[in-house]
Amino acid sequence: MQTDEFHVFDTTLRDGAQREGITYSVADKLAVARLLDQIGVGFIEGGWPGAMPKDTEFFARAADGELALKNAVLVAFGATRKAGVHVEDDPQVRALLDSRAAVITLVAKSDVRHVERALRTTPEENLAMVHDTVAFLRAEGRRVFLDCEHFFDGYQHDPDYGVRVLDAAAAAGADVGVLCDTNGGMLPMGVHDVVSDVRRRAAIRLGIHTQDDTGCAVANTLAAVDAGATHAQGTANGYGERAGNANIFSVIGGLVTKMGRDVLPDGCLGEMYRVAHAVAEIANLAPDTHAPYVGASAFAHKAGLHASAIKIAPEMYNHLDPTIVGNGQRILVTEMAGRASVELKSRELGVDVADRPDVVSRVVERVKAREADGWSYEAADASFELLLRDELGQNSEPFTVESYRVIVDRREDGTMVSEATVKVSAGGQRAICTDEGNGPVNALDRALRKALERAYPRLAELELTDYKVRIMPGRHGTDAVTRVLIETSDRHREWTTVGVHANVIEASWLALHDAVRYGLLP
Amino acid sequence: MQTDEFHVFDTTLRDGAQREGITYSVADKLAVARLLDQIGVGFIEGGWPGAMPKDTEFFARAADGELALKNAVLVAFGATRKAGVHVEDDPQVRALLDSRAAVITLVAKSDVRHVERALRTTPEENLAMVHDTVAFLRAEGRRVFLDCEHFFDGYQHDPDYGVRVLDAAAAAGADVGVLCDTNGGMLPMGVHDVVSDVRRRAAIRLGIHTQDDTGCAVANTLAAVDAGATHAQGTANGYGERAGNANIFSVIGGLVTKMGRDVLPDGCLGEMYRVAHAVAEIANLAPDTHAPYVGASAFAHKAGLHASAIKIAPEMYNHLDPTIVGNGQRILVTEMAGRASVELKSRELGVDVADRPDVVSRVVERVKAREADGWSYEAADASFELLLRDELGQNSEPFTVESYRVIVDRREDGTMVSEATVKVSAGGQRAICTDEGNGPVNALDRALRKALERAYPRLAELELTDYKVRIMPGRHGTDAVTRVLIETSDRHREWTTVGVHANVIEASWLALHDAVRYGLLP
Repeated sequence: MQTDEFHVFDTTLRDGAQREGITYSVADKLAVARLLDQIGVGFIEGGWPGAMPKDTEFFARAADGELALKNAVLVAFGATRKAGVHVEDDPQVRALLDSRAAVITLVAKSDVRHVERALRTTPEENLAMVHDTVAFLRAEGRRVFLDCEHFFDGYQHDPDYGVRVLDAAAAAGADVGVLCDTNGGMLPMGVHDVVSDVRRRAAIRLGIHTQDDTGCAVANTLAAVDAGATHAQGTANGYGERAGNANIFSVIGGLVTKMGRDVLPDGCLGEMYRVAHAVAEIANLAPDTHAPYVGASAFAHKAGLHASAIKIAPEMYNHLDPTIVGNGQRILVTEMAGRASVELKSRELGVDVADRPDVVSRVVERVKAREADGWSYEAADASFELLLRDELGQNSEPFTVESYRVIVDRREDGTMVSEATVKVSAGGQRAICTDEGNGPVNALDRALRKALERAYPRLAELELTDYKVRIMPGRHGTDAVTRVLIETSDRHREWTTVGVHANVIEASWLALHDAVRYGLLP
Repeated sequence: MQTDEFHVFDTTLRDGAQREGITYSVADKLAVARLLDQIGVGFIEGGWPGAMPKDTEFFARAADGELALKNAVLVAFGATRKAGVHVEDDPQVRALLDSRAAVITLVAKSDVRHVERALRTTPEENLAMVHDTVAFLRAEGRRVFLDCEHFFDGYQHDPDYGVRVLDAAAAAGADVGVLCDTNGGMLPMGVHDVVSDVRRRAAIRLGIHTQDDTGCAVANTLAAVDAGATHAQGTANGYGERAGNANIFSVIGGLVTKMGRDVLPDGCLGEMYRVAHAVAEIANLAPDTHAPYVGASAFAHKAGLHASAIKIAPEMYNHLDPTIVGNGQRILVTEMAGRASVELKSRELGVDVADRPDVVSRVVERVKAREADGWSYEAADASFELLLRDELGQNSEPFTVESYRVIVDRREDGTMVSEATVKVSAGGQRAICTDEGNGPVNALDRALRKALERAYPRLAELELTDYKVRIMPGRHGTDAVTRVLIETSDRHREWTTVGVHANVIEASWLALHDAVRYGLLP
C-alpha cells in the first residue's frame, strides 16, 4: 500500500519528455505510465493537457479506463491563471479540470526577476495568480502541488519572495510546495541550506525538483530529503532537458538502500532494472550501460586481481546486493547470458531443458556469440525460442529460402513503388512470388507469405504489427549494424523476433523469417 | 602556473581504463595525456608500470620526451610492498622507480576486513607495508600519494584503522592520503561527515576518490572538498569501472564555477568541451550528449514557452554562460516552437530574418505542418537552414532528380548485393549512374554523388558519418512513418539532415538529398 508519508513523484512523461530526441505517442505514454506504476511510484505526471493535444488525449484515455494503475495517481501539469484574467475564464486552467486528473501540479514563478521580465507582471499579481488558481482547483476537489520554478536562483537574489509564493499556495490549500532548481546550477550543500531554511519559514510540505547541470541532481534531491523535503521528483533514466533531470531510479536507490527510507510498496524495488530498460526501449534510446543501480555494467567486475575474493565475499566488492534492484553481478567482461538465465527463460517459455545441460551450454554459447555481433534477445522471445528449439532438435524447417530481391523505385512523377520477389520451397513445391508494399519490408512480407500460402494457408492470419530499427555502433566506428525488431500477431497472440545485419533489408528479412517460422510452430 | 594548493588529479588512463569496452594503445594514452594537460589538470596518473607492459612502455616513452606537458605532472600507480617481503626486493616497487615518474600513487588497504580477508595479512603488517614503501620511495626522491582503498566502508566498520593507515603514511613522508569510496556506496552527507572527522584526527593532507554507484560521485567529491580535502581525483567523462568514476569535467565545473575555487591555470576552462569530445573520440565511445557542462545538449533549450524570454535574458535560463567551458547555447526547433525560437535559431545559423516577419510566419507554419507528419528539426539544423533559405528565396536548386531505383538482392549462395541507380540533371547535363553499397542507403549515396561529381567535384569530400532510423507510430496505429537522420562531414564541419516517409528508402533519400544540397551551399 502506498501511503502519503513520502511522495515519489515521476515526471518522465512531462518534464522528461523535454529531452532532445524524445517523442512519445499516446500509446507510448500509456505504456510508460504502466511501467512506472510497476515500480511503485506514488505519482505519475502525465503531461500538460490543453497545451499539447497528445497530452489531452492521454488523460482522456487514462480517465476512460485504459490505465489501471495499482500504485500511482495520475497528475496533470499546468500553469497558474494568466495575469489579469479571472481564473474561471482561463481555458488552460479549465483544461486541467477537464483532464479529470485527481492531482494537479501548477507551475508558478518564484523568482521575482522572472515574474517581472518573463511573465511581465507584478510580484503581487503573481501571488494572486497562485492563490486564485490553487483555490479554484481545490474548490473543484482536486489536490494541488505547486512547482516553484527557479526557486533556488530566486532565493539567492531575494530570499523572501519565494517564501511568499509558498505561503500564498499554502493559504489557498496546496499540499506541497516543490522547490525547483530549474536551471540546475545547485550543489548539495547549498540545497541543504536552502531547504532547511525554507522549512523553518514556510508552513507547507516541501518537495524537490532538480536538474543535472552540475552532475549533482540525484545528490541534490537526497540532500533536500535529508533537510526535510518529503516529496521528490525525478524521471526514468534521468531523461530531461539539457543534462537531464534527477534519475528517479538513482533517487529511489539512494532513499531506500542508503538512507533507509521505505518509499516504495513491497516487492517493487526489484522491478527497477526491468522497468529502466523497458522505458529506454519505448523512448528508443540505448539504455545507459553504466547507470547506477540499473545499468548492465553497474555491478560488473573485471576478472583478475579481485576475482577469487569476490567469489568468497561479494559484499566486500559491491555497495549493494544487485538482486535487490533486479540487477545481477557480472564477473566476466562479457554479456549477461549465463546458464541460469537460459534455464529460467526456457522454463518461462514452457521448454524443458532441466535434463539437457549440453543444450543449455550450446544455447549460452550461441547467444554470447550473437550478442557480440549486436543481437539482443531481451525483447525477442520468439527468436530465442526458435534458437532453443533448434538446439533441442525440435524444429523441422517448414520452408527453405533460395533467394529474394527487393526493388524500390521512385518514378519521374514522384510515385514510389516497392516490389519484392521471393523464391522458396515449401511442402515439396518451389514457388516464385512477387508482390508490392508501401515499403521494402512490407513488400517482402507480402511476397513471402504469398509464396507460402498454398503450403500454409494459416499464414493469411499473420499481421506485422510493429517494426523497430536501431543502428548499433560498431566496435570500429564504421562497421555499424542494424538491429530490427518485428512484432507479429495472428489475432490470438503476439510475438517479437529480431534480425541483425549491416544491411537494413537483410536485418529485416531475418526478423521476418523468424516471425513466419514462429507463426508456423505447432 | 600550477600551484600545489589544490590538486586536480586525473586518473582517466589508470582507473578510468577499467571501464568495460575501453582499450587504449600506448599512442592513445599519450594523446589522452596531452589533451588532459591542455585543460590544466595538475596530475595525470598514467597507469601501473610493471603490472601492465603497455603502461611500462607509456612511462618510458613519456620520460624519453614524447610527452611535453605544460601543466601536469605524470604519476605512476602501484601497490605497497608485498607482505613479508623487503621493500627493496619487491619487483613491483622497483618498477615504479624505473618508470621515472616524479610522483607515485601507492594503493593500500585501509579497511581491516580487506587486509585480513583479501590481502590475508595482519593489520600491523599492512601498516608496515605502507610505511616501508612510502619511506623507500621518498628516500629515492619521489613524491608519494597514498590511495586508501575502501576507506569509507572501512571507516563504518572501524573508524580507527583507516586513520592509522594515514598516520603510517604521513610518518613515512607521504604528501596526501586519498580517501577512496572504492565500492561507490556513499552519499554526500556521509562523505562530508567522514572527511571532516578524519581531518581532525589525521595529520596529513586529504584527497578524495569516488565512484558513481549511487549517482553521487561528483557531489561526493565536492562535499569532500567542502569538508577540507584539497586533492580531487576524477576521470574524463566519468569513465571507469561499473557506474564509472567522478567526471573530472563536472568536478572542475563545480569547483571553479560554483565553489569559486580557482583550480585551473588561466585560459584552460574554455578547453573542456573540446577535450571532453576528443577523449571520447580516442576511447571510441559516443560522447554523452547530455553530460553536464560539456554535452552537446547541456545548454540546449526546447521549450517554445521560454524562447522569447531566453532571447532577452539568456542568463535567466542558463546556470552558466556556456562559452566559459567552451560550449554554446542551442535553441531546438520543436513541436512547441513559435516565432521566437525560429528567430533565435535563424540568428544562431547566421541567417537574418529580423525584417522578414512574413518569412518567419511561413517557416513556423511549415515546421508545424511537417512536425505533425513526424518530421523533427531538433537535431537537423542543416535541413532547417535549407527550409529557411528556401523561404527566403536564397536557394537555387543545384540539381534536379528525375528518378531513382534501389535493388537489394540476396542470392542463392547467401551473398547480398545492394545496387542503386539515380537519374539527375546538374549543370545543364543529365546523368544516369549506378553504384553498389553495403546496403541500400550506402548504394544510393554513392550513386547520387557519382552522378553529381562532374558538376560538383567537391562532393568527393563528403562522407556519411552517421545514420539513425526511428519508426514513428502513426496516429491511427498502422500508418507508421520512418524518420531518418543523416550526419554528413566534409572534414571541416558536420551537419545533420532529416527525412520522413512511410518508405524507409524514401525517408533516407530525402535526408540524403538535403545532406548533399547543404554540402553545396556557397
